[in-house]
Amino acid sequence: MPDKRLHFDGARVLADLYALRAIGAYKSGVHKPTFSEPHMRSLEWLVQRLPEAGLAGEIDGIGNVLGTSSKSGPKLLAGSHLESQNYAGWLDGPLGVVYALEAARVLNPDPDINGAVEVACWCDEEGHFGSFLGSRSYVGGLTEKDVDAARDRNSDRTMREALREVGLAGRPRVAAERGRHIGYLEAHIEQGQTLEGGALNVGVVTSIVGIWQYRITFTGEQNHAGTTRMAVRKDAGLALAKFCVAIDERFPGACGPRTVWTTGSIRLDPGAPSIIPGGAEMLFQIRDADTAIIDRLEQLLRSMAAEAGARGPCTVAVERIRTGAPAMMDASFQQAIEAASKEFAGGKSIRMPSAAGHDAQILSTIMPAGMLFVPSIGGISHHWTENTDDADIVTGAAVFVDACRRLLAGRRTSVNST
Amino acid sequence: MPDKRLHFDGARVLADLYALRAIGAYKSGVHKPTFSEPHMRSLEWLVQRLPEAGLAGEIDGIGNVLGTSSKSGPKLLAGSHLESQNYAGWLDGPLGVVYALEAARVLNPDPDINGAVEVACWCDEEGHFGSFLGSRSYVGGLTEKDVDAARDRNSDRTMREALREVGLAGRPRVAAERGRHIGYLEAHIEQGQTLEGGALNVGVVTSIVGIWQYRITFTGEQNHAGTTRMAVRKDAGLALAKFCVAIDERFPGACGPRTVWTTGSIRLDPGAPSIIPGGAEMLFQIRDADTAIIDRLEQLLRSMAAEAGARGPCTVAVERIRTGAPAMMDASFQQAIEAASKEFAGGKSIRMPSAAGHDAQILSTIMPAGMLFVPSIGGISHHWTENTDDADIVTGAAVFVDACRRLLAGRRTSVNST
Repeated sequence: MPDKRLHFDGARVLADLYALRAIGAYKSGVHKPTFSEPHMRSLEWLVQRLPEAGLAGEIDGIGNVLGTSSKSGPKLLAGSHLESQNYAGWLDGPLGVVYALEAARVLNPDPDINGAVEVACWCDEEGHFGSFLGSRSYVGGLTEKDVDAARDRNSDRTMREALREVGLAGRPRVAAERGRHIGYLEAHIEQGQTLEGGALNVGVVTSIVGIWQYRITFTGEQNHAGTTRMAVRKDAGLALAKFCVAIDERFPGACGPRTVWTTGSIRLDPGAPSIIPGGAEMLFQIRDADTAIIDRLEQLLRSMAAEAGARGPCTVAVERIRTGAPAMMDASFQQAIEAASKEFAGGKSIRMPSAAGHDAQILSTIMPAGMLFVPSIGGISHHWTENTDDADIVTGAAVFVDACRRLLAGRRTSVNST
Repeated sequence: MPDKRLHFDGARVLADLYALRAIGAYKSGVHKPTFSEPHMRSLEWLVQRLPEAGLAGEIDGIGNVLGTSSKSGPKLLAGSHLESQNYAGWLDGPLGVVYALEAARVLNPDPDINGAVEVACWCDEEGHFGSFLGSRSYVGGLTEKDVDAARDRNSDRTMREALREVGLAGRPRVAAERGRHIGYLEAHIEQGQTLEGGALNVGVVTSIVGIWQYRITFTGEQNHAGTTRMAVRKDAGLALAKFCVAIDERFPGACGPRTVWTTGSIRLDPGAPSIIPGGAEMLFQIRDADTAIIDRLEQLLRSMAAEAGARGPCTVAVERIRTGAPAMMDASFQQAIEAASKEFAGGKSIRMPSAAGHDAQILSTIMPAGMLFVPSIGGISHHWTENTDDADIVTGAAVFVDACRRLLAGRRTSVNST
């Protein structure tokens, strides 16, 4: 049933999300790496929906979709992404895109609303080719050289090759028109258990934590796994394992209350069962909203590497390959989401930082930005079992549409605005 | 200069080895995975050399080359392999094939020699598709189902696909003719430092150690690397690292004096920097000539896995995927090599076990077998820097040809036989 006050349609939101899940379905989730056939089909699906919201747009030269309105008045940008991690969940990305589409469908045709919601879909938020390439392109933070250098982490092809294959090579990349938008709003599943644990409906994001990423390389001596005595081995894989265990032992004494760290990828060289690895590499990530804590942990990491190298028999090198400063969410956006939550979610909201990276952190560098979280069942994400109750999806959509209305109306702090 | 007593030509041996190194060269070594273009070209090279030794042969349906002689009298089988590990050394395999070819070239045309040396080149000794598939096919230990199941560890293709691609599909596999050979002799680089350390020229192999291989699987919970608090993580990669360190701590107290163990391969699932690994797998190998020690270590491994699983948060499963009983080398073959070493290497030989697996262990299941080692510089192998002094290569060839002569003559224990 459409909501009378907003002409908002929860069933339409769910139907759209189901339609997107059917493109590239994998078990109860999806497999839509950036520029895969199901990803491109999802973008086409979005482009075809835009006119329903009075918007026009197409896929640009980096794979972004920007739906723009010719309506007068203030413009609010809203959106998320449509590609997925490999064999991952159905809501990470699509939820924010469909909420933005629904807000545009509800608010843009309404003559009582001054202005419009414009819908954005950012390419490669999931980092198959790099780090936030789509939103960075839009804010002007991505050079042609950056595009030249980007490679698919699933294969050996370059981003240029991928763009050619999907027919986007040569298209212009759409850049932000400074001053056009009053800000950017993005909805997302929480991907944690704060909301579920507190029986809450809405997370009002205060900041997005920074991500620091390191390549840690171990160098020993490649040799035969049968003929090389244990005493003379320089096993880079074992050196890596010891380093992982040392991090697990020493980081808790130096971290903050919300710090997290992860070794998500390990590679042994050459990685054959009968060969002692001469080289090993791990990708290591630290996340915190407090850069002082990150500094302290990075220092610890480097001194641990120096100690391990001095002890031998392998050398250890630490290289920082990604630096992420925390991004603050705009106060008036937080107030609008909180007010909408009082109206449509019984006030069951909480202010919280985001421990995951999102395109909103990139958009926040050129305009006010805000984020809204809905609950994740069991906190699970980046896995095909990721899910959210349909009722929570619908409640989140109502809050999102109302927050957009409040932001366009400029009545950001008003609680009873209907 | 050809050796007058044997018409043996050290320069020809070196020239052949250089020619094989030029096919699929990588730095100072080679890259010739099984059924790669340079591997197939190397096999063709060998087939074309066979007539020089009075032999006829071609590549069979599993990629073996068998050069057979029509000369009357006893036949000695000799050989090794021509594919390599990835980006590996130039001598591991080719040395034994060229020694065998040289022995056949010297002895087969000699009317004073009763019988002939027949040359074998076994496919896939390096295990790209399985475990000693070529020599196992020859001794009758490989079913068509085994071939169906074999897959390339470098890619996803099956052995059947690879055989089709290189034009070997449908060719018969040559099987051993029982009673044809008095035995099998194989030369190889030592791949260790025993000979170099003792300033010795020849290793007389007494036995080949068994290899036991295990797949150890860790199961945790895949989740988001930002939003999942440290306290609730079930990180399968960290569980694997801890297990590697525990092996390093506890195996020395239970192993024998010559036991070696290796984790050569680690895989995290899904292996992305922003995802906590929900699964992890390592391939773990133990080698010893004493099965009682292996039994003890396997028991330790399984009890460690049970302890780790009970402690949590991840479960650990140990699966034995390869069982290798030690293979004994024939006493008369050892005596022949030792006698030849006295004649051509100043007696600078030592009896020693082989800690690496070789096709001789497979051949030893159906005929007497022996192995001869030459020194490895720095003990390095399975790496492109693997090398042996040219002078040591030539000395080893002289010993090998003379050992073949002694075995054919049946004067296996005679020291002064020239």
